[in-house]
Amino acid sequence: MDLAQKIRVVEDFPKKGISFKDITTLLKDKEAYHYTVDTMVKICKEMGAEIVVGPEARGFVLGAPVAYGLNTGFVLVRKPGKLPAETVRYEYELEYGTDVLEIHKDAIQPGQKVVIVDDLLATGGTALAVTKLVEKLGGIVVGILFVMELRYLNGRKTLEGYNVHSLIQYER
Amino acid sequence: MDLAQKIRVVEDFPKKGISFKDITTLLKDKEAYHYTVDTMVKICKEMGAEIVVGPEARGFVLGAPVAYGLNTGFVLVRKPGKLPAETVRYEYELEYGTDVLEIHKDAIQPGQKVVIVDDLLATGGTALAVTKLVEKLGGIVVGILFVMELRYLNGRKTLEGYNVHSLIQYER
Repeated sequence: MDLAQKIRVVEDFPKKGISFKDITTLLKDKEAYHYTVDTMVKICKEMGAEIVVGPEARGFVLGAPVAYGLNTGFVLVRKPGKLPAETVRYEYELEYGTDVLEIHKDAIQPGQKVVIVDDLLATGGTALAVTKLVEKLGGIVVGILFVMELRYLNGRKTLEGYNVHSLIQYER
Repeated sequence: MDLAQKIRVVEDFPKKGISFKDITTLLKDKEAYHYTVDTMVKICKEMGAEIVVGPEARGFVLGAPVAYGLNTGFVLVRKPGKLPAETVRYEYELEYGTDVLEIHKDAIQPGQKVVIVDDLLATGGTALAVTKLVEKLGGIVVGILFVMELRYLNGRKTLEGYNVHSLIQYER
């Protein structure tokens, strides 16, 4: 299946000059959605995933069904103040200012093999932050899996040393 | 399976006096997570669901795997400014001020049978807003499904006339 055809490209969103890749048209299409999750589950199996981690909010949309299809649990990485129990946090640089992500301290067992799932690899900043959180808890990141990858933003360089996989690549 | 045992209760979160029901302990437990999704899929089938809608952000965590297990598409309801294409919006009252939710205008087909999935039924305000969005697009809400229900907040009264179902009920 040509998944790229199921993505709607919205010009000038969220601001002028940005060509936004809208995954909602894929998600609402049952064949495309199932093919996407099934393909991601297969890749996660090859990676040896024991648990799936997804960052808020679109990472939940893909990570949760992949964990279900893979027959593992699912762990949420959230923005500050959303997780109720004890957390570890990671602060990272954005173009302007900083951002913070959190994970529950008991979410991952030391030595557990983790796959990180998100919808889009852009600069890789969020995914790198998630690897740091997983590793703070002693988890082993066996792979990072995206539906879409904007190759021109070079996120793979940010994630160098990790097993990175995407289903759809955009060259420009 | 006694799902209530898999929920962690965190006292005084997000503020003093609130006994927060933390679903992350259920999600990371593969047996409990799968049992939860499987049970929700079974109920959705009985409701005749043709598509699943989930509100940001925890509605994504349950709605997406239920749609996958049910073999339907999944539709996102989001906070303003997150959906890139043309949307319809619904503004609703909170205790203090108002909140707004959006759905893509082409997300639901007229006459399509919709199940709304979320983690928690509290006052029912968010779920009611989602029914309004679905109905604005001509969709038929055949059911509203939650993992947890805080019965003392009387959300079922807000959702009167709809087929409401929850897996775990808290009486206080």
